[in-house]
Amino acid sequence: MSKKKQFVEKVTAMEDDFGQWYTDVVKQADLVDYGQVRGTMIIKPYGFAIWENIRDELDRKFKETGHSNVAFPLFIPESLLQKEKDHVEGFAPEVAWVTHGGDEKLAERIAVRPTSEVLFCDYYSKNIHSYRDLPMLYNQWGNVVRWEKTTRPFLRSSEFHWQEGHTAHATDEDAAEETERMLGVYADIAENYLAIPVIRGRKTDKEKFAGAKYTLTIESLMHDGRALQSATSHHFGTGFAEAFDITYLDESGESQFVHQTSWGLSTRIMGALIMVHGDNRGLVVPPRIAPTQALILPIAQHKEGVLDKAYDLRDQLKDLVRVGIDASDKTPGWKFNESEMKGIPVRIEIGPKDIEKEQVVLVRRDTGEKEFVALTDLHDRLPALLEEVQQNLFDKAAAHRSEKTSTATTMEEFKQTLDQKSGFIKAMWCGDLACEEEIREETQATSRCIPFEQEKVADTCVCCGKEAKEMVYWARAY
Amino acid sequence: MSKKKQFVEKVTAMEDDFGQWYTDVVKQADLVDYGQVRGTMIIKPYGFAIWENIRDELDRKFKETGHSNVAFPLFIPESLLQKEKDHVEGFAPEVAWVTHGGDEKLAERIAVRPTSEVLFCDYYSKNIHSYRDLPMLYNQWGNVVRWEKTTRPFLRSSEFHWQEGHTAHATDEDAAEETERMLGVYADIAENYLAIPVIRGRKTDKEKFAGAKYTLTIESLMHDGRALQSATSHHFGTGFAEAFDITYLDESGESQFVHQTSWGLSTRIMGALIMVHGDNRGLVVPPRIAPTQALILPIAQHKEGVLDKAYDLRDQLKDLVRVGIDASDKTPGWKFNESEMKGIPVRIEIGPKDIEKEQVVLVRRDTGEKEFVALTDLHDRLPALLEEVQQNLFDKAAAHRSEKTSTATTMEEFKQTLDQKSGFIKAMWCGDLACEEEIREETQATSRCIPFEQEKVADTCVCCGKEAKEMVYWARAY
Repeated sequence: MSKKKQFVEKVTAMEDDFGQWYTDVVKQADLVDYGQVRGTMIIKPYGFAIWENIRDELDRKFKETGHSNVAFPLFIPESLLQKEKDHVEGFAPEVAWVTHGGDEKLAERIAVRPTSEVLFCDYYSKNIHSYRDLPMLYNQWGNVVRWEKTTRPFLRSSEFHWQEGHTAHATDEDAAEETERMLGVYADIAENYLAIPVIRGRKTDKEKFAGAKYTLTIESLMHDGRALQSATSHHFGTGFAEAFDITYLDESGESQFVHQTSWGLSTRIMGALIMVHGDNRGLVVPPRIAPTQALILPIAQHKEGVLDKAYDLRDQLKDLVRVGIDASDKTPGWKFNESEMKGIPVRIEIGPKDIEKEQVVLVRRDTGEKEFVALTDLHDRLPALLEEVQQNLFDKAAAHRSEKTSTATTMEEFKQTLDQKSGFIKAMWCGDLACEEEIREETQATSRCIPFEQEKVADTCVCCGKEAKEMVYWARAY
Repeated sequence: MSKKKQFVEKVTAMEDDFGQWYTDVVKQADLVDYGQVRGTMIIKPYGFAIWENIRDELDRKFKETGHSNVAFPLFIPESLLQKEKDHVEGFAPEVAWVTHGGDEKLAERIAVRPTSEVLFCDYYSKNIHSYRDLPMLYNQWGNVVRWEKTTRPFLRSSEFHWQEGHTAHATDEDAAEETERMLGVYADIAENYLAIPVIRGRKTDKEKFAGAKYTLTIESLMHDGRALQSATSHHFGTGFAEAFDITYLDESGESQFVHQTSWGLSTRIMGALIMVHGDNRGLVVPPRIAPTQALILPIAQHKEGVLDKAYDLRDQLKDLVRVGIDASDKTPGWKFNESEMKGIPVRIEIGPKDIEKEQVVLVRRDTGEKEFVALTDLHDRLPALLEEVQQNLFDKAAAHRSEKTSTATTMEEFKQTLDQKSGFIKAMWCGDLACEEEIREETQATSRCIPFEQEKVADTCVCCGKEAKEMVYWARAY
């Protein structure tokens, strides 16, 4: 750490400027730095370690559900990208184009992949022959590029990291099951690891993925009351299969189109993590994905025996939890602030008095509560405390979401509620695009999803007053 | 598996056409398919699973030696790439250039990273202030692009996957130690996991990395007697630090340039794996990195009890080794051939007679030897056999290299030996670029490295006859 930086710079209060608070936390917690090309980001060691924990957990679940990892190319020839009409319309405006290799001008422009559907489709068309080849369950971890006008670290960056699953199935039902299964994996990761409660549902046709039959989504609510789409899972039906001629011979020897899905979760989820749990002292990381779950801070470390004891403690705990130690020569105040800014779930303080009493002090990041724990009890207490922190973060987020979720039966009520308390609005919809667009124009709220758990909050569409088909979650969103 | 494909297609014999043999194995063993853009590749599930095992092992070792993973951008502005003169000269001819974002022509061309030195240097120049910030030990796993004229899967592809370590140190000695430490990690992976014996040494100035003070390398020998550079580790001295103004305040408050290193290992090593261990029946994968270490093949699986017993066996073994089972309805001959083509180290056959005798048959991929093992002994014997296979692969490769390593004291001898038996030529060198170039011109052999283990095979340079400085390994190389 530089001598110049002897204190943790304060972050802007989220009540004053939520956007600035976000930017401050991202920088101060050492998650990200800006790249030289507009909208690109450098994910620093601490940010990347959190992402690695999310990634490893997801990867384990993908493998458990029978998926294989692969690596498809970064580059897509322009002609291949154009094969599915809706798809190219959706993505072409944000493609970064390679036109030269060395000094040579290329005969055909090459897209840096904004997503890889067409590459997988091209491969499937050549490699799927019979029902025995199905299902084909592929996933890849990689980077994609979308030339966005306005960018923010994690939330919208020109290059981002993600995984994209691409699968091919014999029947529509198989593909539908897969689409739902993978949404379930994402919901599990969000709720049980990231401690972020999510609404599961289907996107409207307006908001679905370019080229999909339908898109499932998990939607979460940020601290400022805006929603964030946290992962999506798409059922393609046979749309891509028809465009790319992906067929198989079924058991009776008939040629059939395959039914496909794709699904993705990106570094965008890091933005949700920050904006759901963070506070004015910085980041708060849920224990299950925290690179350091507990940080040992020696108090009065210059006194004899303190550092030895602190290192002993680290060695005793290291197979139990992911434990760190800060034995640097920074001031104790600096160390406290830094561990808070980085959102380390539990701080373990040990000083001369604690050593005398054979105890440590545990300080929770989420509530600030302190407790004295006898060294003999620490092996039981520390993991239990981490679980309590994990659960509390989820409960707090769920309570916040619940408080920020309203119903509206008229446009007047819709607008007023949104302006007064933001958050999710549950309102009925007739299913017409015109109403969806009018709501957006009048309120800046978009349809987040048609939730699987439906409630009938009224009989008529909140916008046009005609008979309602479904209840929709609406919100202003990232 | 498609009905059309009821047999494993034979590969070309390596004696007839080594290049075609390589291409056949890469395809038939399901490692790779070709991408649509020239020179790009699709790494299929089996190929990627091998790469994942190499990657995970390396990643563990990087973390053990104190390195943090990060993710730097894919894109480099042209002006940034040009900051270090030697570096840009080395890489500019093979850069893929992005010139448009969506419909907008960019003000400055953007390079798709061919390597990331300049990005890390730019970051270090802004983020290193004091000796307390050092060493900075970063690594990243990612994809890079080099617009090569002639490409082959794994060996030379326009896009490839690798890791690149980038570190900054307070002193030249620290950087030198790091350069050597990481070469040691690579040699360990190559020899103890991939079973590939390597020569450790230093590259000549002609062959060093563009911008480096010196480059260390591990060099391995393929079955056809050509060499392959398997990983490199570069000491940059202060060259990049001076170009990018990367300084720190030392303990006495003086401003100093940092001393840097970078080091990388890529999917190219998959090419070495294939060409060192493969044979005319296909791939041979060393047990320590094999996705499936042992494959259970039920014999006469339609007979009562065989499949049940085979699955029981799988369940008993699955915590002991990475075990698979092929209970598909393919013919036994097909299954044998496929397991050989994929290079699975040990096949476990179990049929009605074996069940009666409470035994299995173990068949080694490397030697083809069979042994009958009582079920009660399998828990001890199988892991031991895998270790024997691992050791045998290393020993065979070492014996082959030894047989293909010659010395030469005259150019006549150099050329004759190379033409007759290919392989490594150990010969003395005066240190002059002119001789190195003449040797290349006359023999197509390049200097592979100046090995750490020097031998004095003559007093004079093999080329010019002047006083020799060092012994060099020469070879025709991939």
